Parts: sequence; structure tokens; C-alpha cells
Amino acid sequence: MKSKEKLSIAFEKNLHICIGLDTDINKIPEFLKSEKSPISIFNKMIIESTYEQAAAYKVNFAFYEQEGAKGYDLLEETKKYIPENVFTIADAKRGDIGNTSEMYAKAVFDLLNFDSITLHPYMGNDSLSPFLKYEDRLNFILALTSNKGAIDFEKLKLANGNLLYQEVIEKIKLWNMNKNLGLVFGATKLEELKENIERFGELPILLPGVGAQGGSLEDVVSIFHNSNNNRFLINISRGLIYVDSSREFINKVKSALNGFNSTIDRINN
Amino acid sequence: MKSKEKLSIAFEKNLHICIGLDTDINKIPEFLKSEKSPISIFNKMIIESTYEQAAAYKVNFAFYEQEGAKGYDLLEETKKYIPENVFTIADAKRGDIGNTSEMYAKAVFDLLNFDSITLHPYMGNDSLSPFLKYEDRLNFILALTSNKGAIDFEKLKLANGNLLYQEVIEKIKLWNMNKNLGLVFGATKLEELKENIERFGELPILLPGVGAQGGSLEDVVSIFHNSNNNRFLINISRGLIYVDSSREFINKVKSALNGFNSTIDRINN
Repeated sequence: MKSKEKLSIAFEKNLHICIGLDTDINKIPEFLKSEKSPISIFNKMIIESTYEQAAAYKVNFAFYEQEGAKGYDLLEETKKYIPENVFTIADAKRGDIGNTSEMYAKAVFDLLNFDSITLHPYMGNDSLSPFLKYEDRLNFILALTSNKGAIDFEKLKLANGNLLYQEVIEKIKLWNMNKNLGLVFGATKLEELKENIERFGELPILLPGVGAQGGSLEDVVSIFHNSNNNRFLINISRGLIYVDSSREFINKVKSALNGFNSTIDRINN
Repeated sequence: MKSKEKLSIAFEKNLHICIGLDTDINKIPEFLKSEKSPISIFNKMIIESTYEQAAAYKVNFAFYEQEGAKGYDLLEETKKYIPENVFTIADAKRGDIGNTSEMYAKAVFDLLNFDSITLHPYMGNDSLSPFLKYEDRLNFILALTSNKGAIDFEKLKLANGNLLYQEVIEKIKLWNMNKNLGLVFGATKLEELKENIERFGELPILLPGVGAQGGSLEDVVSIFHNSNNNRFLINISRGLIYVDSSREFINKVKSALNGFNSTIDRINN
């Protein structure tokens, strides 16, 4: 199944929760730590019990890279646990000159076979184009991020009246010839979300920041609902995968996910 | 030896060439391809024959990541070939929210033990601070890059009169409490280099783009010389490591490096 199709099907089913696999050995249930490969087993358990109610999985590359070559194997294993029809995001935040971006694209799209990636806009069009050439994959470009530092550059006012992240959104729309671009927009920025939602057009939106970072699921869903836009993914990592540390943690994760989905259903129906 | 000290010693010796290990299996000499680990041997040969005349080595992570777990081992091996007293740059262009940047910093500074890293400024101060906490390491933040796409965002005019990359430079100077920040400034942008060199202050500058990307070594060195600034590294990758593909390629690489160093000596003396 094509990457874009997976996402469209999720949206049609009213599934919008993206599960963030920011798996940290220090935060997984104690009883798993005696296993041979605790992170791999943890991810497998999370995926097997959630994939029917999840819109997507986002794998945060940093959490794996810190383990070196072993981390890379974990990344590959984790990717394989995710059923082929569920949308995947390589949260790698790459971006470099053309010949280098080409290599990053090869790593993430060819080797690891992810459906999408997150990218830094700073270096401009030719730093993104090697990713855009993969016509069926999706590329989520950072617009307004969920952290405090968004104020330092992203929200700077330009001479043309736009804020920098708004300029990013406008250029991304212009560059979307292959219809394979999307945006990252922090779920902690509700005022900005309301003010800018009409700018998004058809771009799918990935919203990090709900849960541990303080964003509210209800508020985000309502804003999209009121704008008649259903092309959004809300990422939840720490607020979902570490919701419990007992031997029954999986039941707690499932019921947390069901809770999130019920909230979305209630607002959208 | 401390990371900053390595760099200072190189500058005192008038060494400014950073050798870019953008090693591509398709571009190394044919006769090495029958070896068990051609990229590893190629890097070893390059490093062993150049380390006394090089100011630093820059390892482009994308070229290794495209090989998966094997690539990570290659990265580790390559890092080990570089003598402990020679400055190293992890050209990884990372940047993410705090808890994630922390993991990237751990991977590059603790696990791989690089002296420095390249970083995207887009997400602001708190995306950089986990790297800045490593007080002895150095962090090169992207200001104006060597590619065409620099025009798309980096050169946008802000309401305060600065261009975006100038604002990055000013904030980086403000954030330099631990004296461990530097800048990436494209060697293909000579006019901008002349106009902005006085803004750099004490920040060390990494200049990519000489050689394959069209930047001129002589021009760059002269601009720094005229400004009485010796805190710069000029990265050369393709224009040095692929200068020849015969069995005697190492001699050609050495003589190319000597040529670059002579040019620098001539201008600086």
C-alpha cells in the first residue's frame, strides 16, 4: 500500500493519534529489563496491542542512535514490528546540501522503508528536494515547533510582515508539486494553531507536544474540527507509552489510547 | 587534550584545512573495492597520510547512515583512526527538543567522542543547550550555508533589518556563555563573508563549499587574513579525497593538501 494511502485511510477512520516510540531504557517497566533486548520487546508489545487503534507510529531516531550500531538494529527491528498498512514517521529532523540529503533519504526511505520523515527547513529548497523526489513518501517540514525556543527564530517577524514559520508554510505549499509535503506544528501553540490553520491548505499536519509537553488533545482536535480539516496527526509519546510500569502496563496503554480516541470521536461526531 | 585546545594549536600552526570524510563507495579507487572493508581502509589511508598537515577531520554522518548498522561501525572505526590530538567534527546537522537533543549529544560526544558537531539553529536556544552543556566540546551552528537554498530562508530580511542568518550569528554570540559555539558559513558566499566577518567576534568558523561546490580557497583565506582573524576551518571533501583513483592516490592527496597549505602560508606570511 502506498504511504499516502495509509494516512488517508487512517483519517477516514477518524484515527489521529500517532504513537511516539521514544523508547528509553530508564523508563520502561522494570520487569522487562531482564530480557535480552528490553527495548525491542517493549516496542513489540506496544505495537502489537495498539496498531488497530493508532493512525501512525513515530520513531524518534535520537533514542536509538545513542545506542550506536545496536541502536540501529533496534530501529530496524522496531520498524519490522509495525504492520505494513500502518503509516510510519522517521523523526530524524535531517536537512543538508543536496548530495548529503540524498544519502539521508536513502537511509530512511530505501534502507529502513519509512513512509515519512521530519525535516529542518533552514537550508532551503535544494536541501529538501532529494526527499521530495520520493513521490509516494511524505515529508513533514518543521514550521512552528512545540518547544520554548520556537520564539528565538521561528517566530521572528520578517520585513514582508510574515513570521518566519509562516513563510516556511507558504514556501512549502509552493514546493508541493509532488503532493508529498506536510508540516510539523506544535500542539503547545494553540493561539498560533487557530490563527494559521487556514494557511495549511491540504498539507497534512503532525502535532507534537500533547501530554508531557503540556498540549491539550481536546483543544487541538476542536480547532481542526471547527476548521473542517481532518488531515492531522497528534503525536503522543511519554503520555502514552509510559503510562504504567506494572506487568499489566499494556492494558493501561490500550485504555489510554482508547481514551484519546474517544475524545476525538466525541468532538468529531 | 581538550577539544578547544586542539583547535587552537592547529590555528597557531597556521593549519586551516579540514578534511571532509564524505566517503562514497562509488568514488574510491577501484583497486580498494576488493578489500573486505573498502571504506574503512580508504579512510585509514587518508587519515594516516594527512593528519600532520590537517587542522581537522569532518565526518559526514549521512554517508555512513546510508549503510545502516554497518555504517555505524564504519563511523566508529574511522573515528578511531584519527589521532587523539587532531580535532574532529561530527557533521550531523542535528537539532530537536531538549530531551531529544540530549540523546543526540550523548551519541556524538559520549559514545563516538567527537570534539564538535554541526547543528541546525531553527528550533532555538533550548534545542541547542543540551549540546552546550558539554563545556569543552564545540558546536558549529548553521548560519549561512554554501548551497543555493540559502536564499529561501537564511537570507530573508527581518523586520529589525537583519537577515535571518545575521540574527542567528547575533543570538549565537549571546548564547556563548561556555565559549563553545562556532558557526557554519559557506565558502561560496564571498560577498557575505566580507560583509559579515566583523560580526563573528571570537567564534570559530567552519567554511564548507571550497572545491566541488565552487568556493575559492585563496579568496576565503585572504578575507580572514585582511580581517586579522585566524579562527577558521576550510572544509574540503571531494576536492581532496577523490583527487586521484590510481594505486598512488595517496601521494596525490598529500600533494593536493600541501598545495592548499602552501596557498594559506603564502597569504598569511
